[in-house]
Amino acid sequence: MSVAGVKKVGKLVICGVGLIGGSFALALRQAGLVEHVVGIGRRPEPLAAARELGIIDEAATDWAAALAGAELVLLAMPVGQMAAVAAAIAPHLQEGTIVTDAGSTKRDVIEAIYGHLDAHLASVVPAHPIAGAEKSGPTAARADLYRQRKVVVTPLPENNPAAVARVRELWAACGAVLHEMSPQDHDRVFAAVSHLPHLLAFGLVHDLAGRANAEQLFSYAASGFRDFTRVAGSHPEMWRDICIANRQSLLAELDAYLTELAYLRALLSEGNGPALERVFDAASRARNTWADKAFPAPPSGE
Amino acid sequence: MSVAGVKKVGKLVICGVGLIGGSFALALRQAGLVEHVVGIGRRPEPLAAARELGIIDEAATDWAAALAGAELVLLAMPVGQMAAVAAAIAPHLQEGTIVTDAGSTKRDVIEAIYGHLDAHLASVVPAHPIAGAEKSGPTAARADLYRQRKVVVTPLPENNPAAVARVRELWAACGAVLHEMSPQDHDRVFAAVSHLPHLLAFGLVHDLAGRANAEQLFSYAASGFRDFTRVAGSHPEMWRDICIANRQSLLAELDAYLTELAYLRALLSEGNGPALERVFDAASRARNTWADKAFPAPPSGE
Repeated sequence: MSVAGVKKVGKLVICGVGLIGGSFALALRQAGLVEHVVGIGRRPEPLAAARELGIIDEAATDWAAALAGAELVLLAMPVGQMAAVAAAIAPHLQEGTIVTDAGSTKRDVIEAIYGHLDAHLASVVPAHPIAGAEKSGPTAARADLYRQRKVVVTPLPENNPAAVARVRELWAACGAVLHEMSPQDHDRVFAAVSHLPHLLAFGLVHDLAGRANAEQLFSYAASGFRDFTRVAGSHPEMWRDICIANRQSLLAELDAYLTELAYLRALLSEGNGPALERVFDAASRARNTWADKAFPAPPSGE
Repeated sequence: MSVAGVKKVGKLVICGVGLIGGSFALALRQAGLVEHVVGIGRRPEPLAAARELGIIDEAATDWAAALAGAELVLLAMPVGQMAAVAAAIAPHLQEGTIVTDAGSTKRDVIEAIYGHLDAHLASVVPAHPIAGAEKSGPTAARADLYRQRKVVVTPLPENNPAAVARVRELWAACGAVLHEMSPQDHDRVFAAVSHLPHLLAFGLVHDLAGRANAEQLFSYAASGFRDFTRVAGSHPEMWRDICIANRQSLLAELDAYLTELAYLRALLSEGNGPALERVFDAASRARNTWADKAFPAPPSGE
């Protein structure tokens, strides 16, 4: 299929061809909206896999070649590499090439842009696609990853409106629903609803996996544990970078949560069933109301 | 289908016809292993629904009638009612009737049994089916809920081996895989892999739902949040009872987890990326190794 009224991307460069970057390339391919896809990254293996899977047409080994004639560059590597990559592309970036990113944090990405791409601020558009999966890497990429998912664009004041519109229309062509927020609001909101749950799940699995009876514990873990810990199967380096990049907001959220846990601990300790039930009841209502609205068709029978 | 070599239950009494009790009745019905199912409970609405859904044949209003001629009684109400129900059934329990339960905690259930059913210890067999779902109540019940799921039996020293064998064979006929543990081990293991994750998920949703910007936060929550909080959609009263009943083990697990969070907080605060990545990497490996083994066919495409 091709998307009415959207111009094809001549040359697309994906830096970091994993789940996120690979799925963007596949979605644009499926929409008939890209001519040539170039992948670039630190390690050759994912690039080779991406080529075999038909995600990219070509793996570049240097930025000069990759950026020559590029229309759009998607930075989809872990956010900790953003400053180094921004510095590396700066000398080779041509007039008219639009750069966007898929980083899960925005203030640090914008800091890297201002630090290294100050000559290109009109065409560097920060964004964050809200999509993930249990698995990472190019083999996990799929053309429908972004269908009905949100993409949050946090434009710079210096952005050329045409560049912002181009980034938006390409994400929309991938099936995504576009939103705009300030980088500050973005980072606070995602600390609460994404980064903290990841940290909490990593922490629980790490705690249990280190026990002498870890094998026994895991053998009795069931579907509730599977779902609670799904995000703990995520890419360790990517999540290290997100947590470090957004640590100011994340620490504030963690502290709010520790206050909540201290309250629950006190209720448990004093055996206060009625108050505990009020908490559970409020949580259960809020969660089910949200989930029924956000995910009207449950993805599984459970 | 009927299960070879297993004798039909003449009269089955389910106390608490919700997800757990209702699914047991439906599974035995589907296996052709029950003649007559009687439901009993505090409120008439779930009993009426269970009757309409064909889960029970009859709703009893008093224990004397319910227990007359009963072959098997399943106590499937929240564990906080266990002592009161044990006291209520004691005067009417006939010689030869086997009683079992589906409580998620075992030490407190056994305490209630010793407190009120001391004349019947040979035939009161504590057990715990490890199955759950996002929704509760009789409408959520289904015949295949226990297929391939574990049921942990924690027999009393006084149990008649024939009674234990009968409880085991009926759960096996529902498709379950049988295990035995001590009540102490049971309560410690499930505090770690079930009760704590529930408490943590209830706490996170409660914390966020109380914020001034709760609506904005929930609007950006995605599939990771959905899965992390699935258990927070569980039955508030049931989980209040479990947390109170098992609070000794649960407090120990919560304290271990708070130590883990204090460690993660320190790493975040000092910006210690390498140590944070080591934690995430260990957790991610442990989680994915476990999940690949425990759930070989993923239940959804995500």
